[in-house]
Amino acid sequence: MIPAGRSPLDETVSQSLDIEQAGGEIHDRIRRLYPICRSITGNGVRETLRIIAGEIPIDIREVPSGTAAFDWHIPREWNIRDAYIKNSAGERVVDFNASNLHVVSYSVPVRSRMSLAQLQPHLFSIPDHPDWIPYKTSYYRETWGFCLSERQRSALRDELYEVCIDSTLENGHLTYGECCLPGTETGEVLFSTHVCHPSLCNDNLSGVSLAVSLAKRLQSRKRRYTYRFLFVPGTIGAIAWLSLNEKRATAVKHGLVLACIGDRGRLSYKQSRQGIAEIDRVVQHVLTQSDPGGRVEEFSPYGYDERQYCSPGFNLPVGVLSRTPHGQFAEYHTSADNLDLVDAASLADSLETCLSIVEVLEANGTFLNTSPKCEPQLGKRGLYAAMGGHSADNRRQEAALLWILNQSDGTQSLLDIAGKSGLPFAVIRAAATALLDNGLLRPSV
Amino acid sequence: MIPAGRSPLDETVSQSLDIEQAGGEIHDRIRRLYPICRSITGNGVRETLRIIAGEIPIDIREVPSGTAAFDWHIPREWNIRDAYIKNSAGERVVDFNASNLHVVSYSVPVRSRMSLAQLQPHLFSIPDHPDWIPYKTSYYRETWGFCLSERQRSALRDELYEVCIDSTLENGHLTYGECCLPGTETGEVLFSTHVCHPSLCNDNLSGVSLAVSLAKRLQSRKRRYTYRFLFVPGTIGAIAWLSLNEKRATAVKHGLVLACIGDRGRLSYKQSRQGIAEIDRVVQHVLTQSDPGGRVEEFSPYGYDERQYCSPGFNLPVGVLSRTPHGQFAEYHTSADNLDLVDAASLADSLETCLSIVEVLEANGTFLNTSPKCEPQLGKRGLYAAMGGHSADNRRQEAALLWILNQSDGTQSLLDIAGKSGLPFAVIRAAATALLDNGLLRPSV
Amino acid sequence: MIPAGRSPLDETVSQSLDIEQAGGEIHDRIRRLYPICRSITGNGVRETLRIIAGEIPIDIREVPSGTAAFDWHIPREWNIRDAYIKNSAGERVVDFNASNLHVVSYSVPVRSRMSLAQLQPHLFSIPDHPDWIPYKTSYYRETWGFCLSERQRSALRDELYEVCIDSTLENGHLTYGECCLPGTETGEVLFSTHVCHPSLCNDNLSGVSLAVSLAKRLQSRKRRYTYRFLFVPGTIGAIAWLSLNEKRATAVKHGLVLACIGDRGRLSYKQSRQGIAEIDRVVQHVLTQSDPGGRVEEFSPYGYDERQYCSPGFNLPVGVLSRTPHGQFAEYHTSADNLDLVDAASLADSLETCLSIVEVLEANGTFLNTSPKCEPQLGKRGLYAAMGGHSADNRRQEAALLWILNQSDGTQSLLDIAGKSGLPFAVIRAAATALLDNGLLRPSV
Repeated sequence: MIPAGRSPLDETVSQSLDIEQAGGEIHDRIRRLYPICRSITGNGVRETLRIIAGEIPIDIREVPSGTAAFDWHIPREWNIRDAYIKNSAGERVVDFNASNLHVVSYSVPVRSRMSLAQLQPHLFSIPDHPDWIPYKTSYYRETWGFCLSERQRSALRDELYEVCIDSTLENGHLTYGECCLPGTETGEVLFSTHVCHPSLCNDNLSGVSLAVSLAKRLQSRKRRYTYRFLFVPGTIGAIAWLSLNEKRATAVKHGLVLACIGDRGRLSYKQSRQGIAEIDRVVQHVLTQSDPGGRVEEFSPYGYDERQYCSPGFNLPVGVLSRTPHGQFAEYHTSADNLDLVDAASLADSLETCLSIVEVLEANGTFLNTSPKCEPQLGKRGLYAAMGGHSADNRRQEAALLWILNQSDGTQSLLDIAGKSGLPFAVIRAAATALLDNGLLRPSV
Repeated sequence: MIPAGRSPLDETVSQSLDIEQAGGEIHDRIRRLYPICRSITGNGVRETLRIIAGEIPIDIREVPSGTAAFDWHIPREWNIRDAYIKNSAGERVVDFNASNLHVVSYSVPVRSRMSLAQLQPHLFSIPDHPDWIPYKTSYYRETWGFCLSERQRSALRDELYEVCIDSTLENGHLTYGECCLPGTETGEVLFSTHVCHPSLCNDNLSGVSLAVSLAKRLQSRKRRYTYRFLFVPGTIGAIAWLSLNEKRATAVKHGLVLACIGDRGRLSYKQSRQGIAEIDRVVQHVLTQSDPGGRVEEFSPYGYDERQYCSPGFNLPVGVLSRTPHGQFAEYHTSADNLDLVDAASLADSLETCLSIVEVLEANGTFLNTSPKCEPQLGKRGLYAAMGGHSADNRRQEAALLWILNQSDGTQSLLDIAGKSGLPFAVIRAAATALLDNGLLRPSV
Repeated sequence: MIPAGRSPLDETVSQSLDIEQAGGEIHDRIRRLYPICRSITGNGVRETLRIIAGEIPIDIREVPSGTAAFDWHIPREWNIRDAYIKNSAGERVVDFNASNLHVVSYSVPVRSRMSLAQLQPHLFSIPDHPDWIPYKTSYYRETWGFCLSERQRSALRDELYEVCIDSTLENGHLTYGECCLPGTETGEVLFSTHVCHPSLCNDNLSGVSLAVSLAKRLQSRKRRYTYRFLFVPGTIGAIAWLSLNEKRATAVKHGLVLACIGDRGRLSYKQSRQGIAEIDRVVQHVLTQSDPGGRVEEFSPYGYDERQYCSPGFNLPVGVLSRTPHGQFAEYHTSADNLDLVDAASLADSLETCLSIVEVLEANGTFLNTSPKCEPQLGKRGLYAAMGGHSADNRRQEAALLWILNQSDGTQSLLDIAGKSGLPFAVIRAAATALLDNGLLRPSV
């Protein structure tokens, strides 16, 4: 009844998507990136970005240590070759090669012998989860430390230990990656992920890998907006990018931070600071349609790089898409955030959700009914099913036509109309396409 | 304690109303109109309007076929004299004289012999209700058909049938009626009902007949507003009226479509597209006071002629008052929507509700406390009951005085104050009258 | 972690408050004021104010009878020396010396003999509470009467009674008291209590006595606002003050009527007419933090002197703080509203709540983040706890820092931020102090 879409509104990205395959693709990439020891600077980030660059076009930026970035300075670059604690028998009782979580990130170099009592203040473990290694950092306070399981720790005897952290902390660079897919209109959509965590999967290799798969799919799509993917170290990386791109940031019309997006929990969305930005309403709509139990939470100034994008001097419309949010799963910032915590089906569902969000962003707009006095006669244009025998689908399409015609006075977007009518955006979009094709609708200036 | 009202605010229309008698009057009129075969044009509408004209002053308008009305044209006029299906024995197995629902409205003339198999695509019945005849129309697609009960249909044998529809579909006119009761101020109240349905009672002889009784009662009332009653064929009739009265339509300050208003269900109200128009708030208040379980629903672009009045090019403040809304009762658009489905008590209750709505519309307004600094001394004006022994009524009247004085800063209407105070509008109105009489209140410009 | 406050924001009034002692102090004062026979004019009010003047600096004002006050005139002054009903045996069966509630306030003088039948229309009792004496007044209608317990009344036999009310109703003055504690900024906070009730404790010696204790404590506090305490006869006293201080009234930025504030019920707040004034939001916040079950009710034009302060010509932001509101406890306006109905612990809790409200009012304000682009680096300023081991308190302080920095764009006050963050105002205030000290925050102009 509604003619097959020929207008730009009717592009669809999900058509060729084999969801199961996409989930496997994202999980495989996490597996490849998992062993690398990343931090907010250093070769681990570079290696990660090189792997990503094999799949999508990415500019790798190097920002020198000491560069000012608003209230901050780029720190010295940290790299690590080896680290261990050897007992008096010369056995490595804690070994960086076994897990890169064993060393507190940004630990200064140390090579010393000490008693257990002297060592204890430098050890971190989780009594409640005796087999898990915690993840700790100390970026801005010069110190060193080891993370180990409670089981390892309690096995330590009172003897003399040889402690070695073969790290360097020197002037160098902060490294980040940026993938930009230009669109036909001005205005950008930002996807931001943090690439500073070592062997942790949900937080945040899930976000990194999903962003790559999303970018791959958007590459082959006709794009209204420019899509910018940032692979940045958390906090200082986002601050560096904003500092170097103050003007460009003002072009961001919609944005999402992707984090903790691969576990088996339900989807959740944290609103941007604006709370009623289009991205907030789009994600709300998509979640309402796909996962009515999905959580939507108000903005708060903790979390990931939305803290920077939503600082009052920028106040960008950037929310956070997650499954189980950070800090709400026990494995958070421990060695248990491993390859088993994330699964292909959840990753695929998250990707599909991102694509649905893109679909709404691309198609949303405000239109004018060109025949606003009384209803136009839909029947003579073949837009109405004939007498009798309407299917439920037909009735939804007719409802969408009437809703759009009634509401399109220039103040209500298609997304608003989807909300008022309770119809999925895709149904509204298809009806709008039909009305545009028939000249009953035109874009509102 | 509050002086008996002498101001214009204190007119009351319900005083002489014998509710039981009114219900009977409305039901009797439905009974008289029931046998007539109406459609969107033709002699059935004319006969209906002639009967109404015997009770209230009504202008009958004839709009020629082919006249343009926005995106539409007035269709050819349809009339029917007879129709039947005869079996091979010459017996009428379906007979228009038994029920005018038997013929699909706007069926083109047909006179033919055909097998049951040839006849079947032209037959309509309701398997779930084997004794009911459905109501079908085909205004804008040239075809013909018969509606019959499932029981009749299943009794048809495989034989040769004589099929006759003795109808005409020719250039002529669309007919509608208009009753206008002028008021003392500019601004109109519109009551609109559709007169295009044949032998169906709740939808919508209930609305037609109630409108006549309402107009009769408003005739003898002092009127602030002009009251315009439209008796129009659904959709095309409302479109025709709006097309011929574009300027006049802008004078409509409040309006109600009356439909499905005679069944035993509770009252329900569908808001205008504006949602917060005065009529929306007035009806909400009246329902809250009289029937707290009454339903209020948001606007949607399906239903009756509110679709036209609330199209974005007009956006008039017109809601719909019903009992059980269209499509929510099983008998809807079937022969079971008959004289038993509507009853005098429900019709009387609906009329009383309409009169209460009129009462609020007529008396509502925004006033200024002429003594706005501190409370004025009500006691010295005899507005306060003396010490002790207040009745509940007295307390409500005192509360109303205080509420009006406190809120009347020119931004709050009496209806707003009724809402804030939780007092019935009639109590607020009486108190406002007393304050006007005492010079403590004056109209806000 | 957050430096101990050195800024003006960090004054705290509760530090030296021994709550138990404060409750006893308020209750003792109620006990001293209880026996005095007050009315809207007369020596009882003067004696009450003299006692208060022994504790706080108070100006006692005398407004002559006949003085115009908006729609009102100051009434004649009423005083009473004695009153009784003697039976034929010469025994006082009703005796003013036993309770000053026995005489209807403002009773005209009477000295007469009459039968029980003649006496009855002048007697008031409460059948449902046979031991309680009701409290009655007749300020603006010249009459006389006795209030007595139902038990007393039913014991009266049919004999000749000697009736004496030794009162005077003559030109004189209306007396009220005013305590003004000047502040460093323009803008006043008004605390208003009514001093016209005779031997009644919760209504309103609780409010009178609590106001005195509050004023004593605010005297020794550094004050941003001017604090004005009014001890006025209900209605006519507030009207007199507003009439004599029209200009000054416009300086009132926040206000509270204190009434029925000593019983054992939970705290309740009645909003100002504005509903969203700062005082409304401050009290809501304080109650939410201290007594989540505390009631907040919308404004209504009955009650105490908020009726005058919130009349539309003034519309001052004045709410009412009570425990059990007037009319919602059985003892209201009876002899059972005695020294047992109020208790020291409840009075202390009410005082503490008032002090908390003052604390928020004094410290609230709107600030600007001086480093609004991205988060400033809190760590280098010592505002962040170091790695690991955060206490819950530290985490709240860090959260407060982030919330303030994120929200301080000049549109959100500290109170708004407390509301959004769910953190107590005191935590927000401490964090704001630290940020001001570090130059990361400055007052918004």
